[in-house]
Amino acid sequence: MDYLDAIAWNADGLVPAIVQDSASGEVLMMAWMNRESLALTLKSGEATYWSRSRKSLWRKGETSGHLQRVVEIRLDCDADAVLLRVEQVGGIACHTGRRRCFFNRLETAGSAPEWRVTEPVLANSGGFRP
Amino acid sequence: MDYLDAIAWNADGLVPAIVQDSASGEVLMMAWMNRESLALTLKSGEATYWSRSRKSLWRKGETSGHLQRVVEIRLDCDADAVLLRVEQVGGIACHTGRRRCFFNRLETAGSAPEWRVTEPVLANSGGFRP
Repeated sequence: MDYLDAIAWNADGLVPAIVQDSASGEVLMMAWMNRESLALTLKSGEATYWSRSRKSLWRKGETSGHLQRVVEIRLDCDADAVLLRVEQVGGIACHTGRRRCFFNRLETAGSAPEWRVTEPVLANSGGFRP
Repeated sequence: MDYLDAIAWNADGLVPAIVQDSASGEVLMMAWMNRESLALTLKSGEATYWSRSRKSLWRKGETSGHLQRVVEIRLDCDADAVLLRVEQVGGIACHTGRRRCFFNRLETAGSAPEWRVTEPVLANSGGFRP
């Protein structure tokens, strides 16, 4: 079976892709892939996603230079989620210029839980909001 | 603002939750949460998800004993993905009895790319397929 046919694409033909830094183990971001973006990723060795807002292929780092070199691609037990381990060029994965997109931490010390930003902006990444 | 209102729930009222082992950094699984499951997770300190197939709350480990104790909850830049860092009780996150759900690796050495199982089955987890 073609490796693309093994994936349980959702009704929109997409699969969520979790992106992990291969060196630090940090989860950098989550994006979405369609068949073409995964095939391009495998062929080029650089992560390409599907932008749901733009409805177009989105080669990560195409504007910012912050490419992701793919080290490994994994599929989960239900074949409905993909895990990419990558080398993050420039050390900045987020379009906000932060190292990773998961920069909000739920803090529960106060009277009500709230999200707090824990990561500094390192650079203007120049990336578009996906 | 209520921390639950900050999340960009999808059309089905769900958000993808990436689950990472807090000790090893390994990405264990991906599941889905609705408002109630996230609120229960925060309140109990143990991960509860929403099963899309069963259309019901699913307290992780309720049948297998393989609970997930939540160490940290994070939200990404677009507020449409959640990251849980957990202590995985029993060291088995997958309903197949494997350590993690991402046990298929895309191998490209042969004539065509193919998914290969890389993780052994450690136990019959007794968990249901989500």
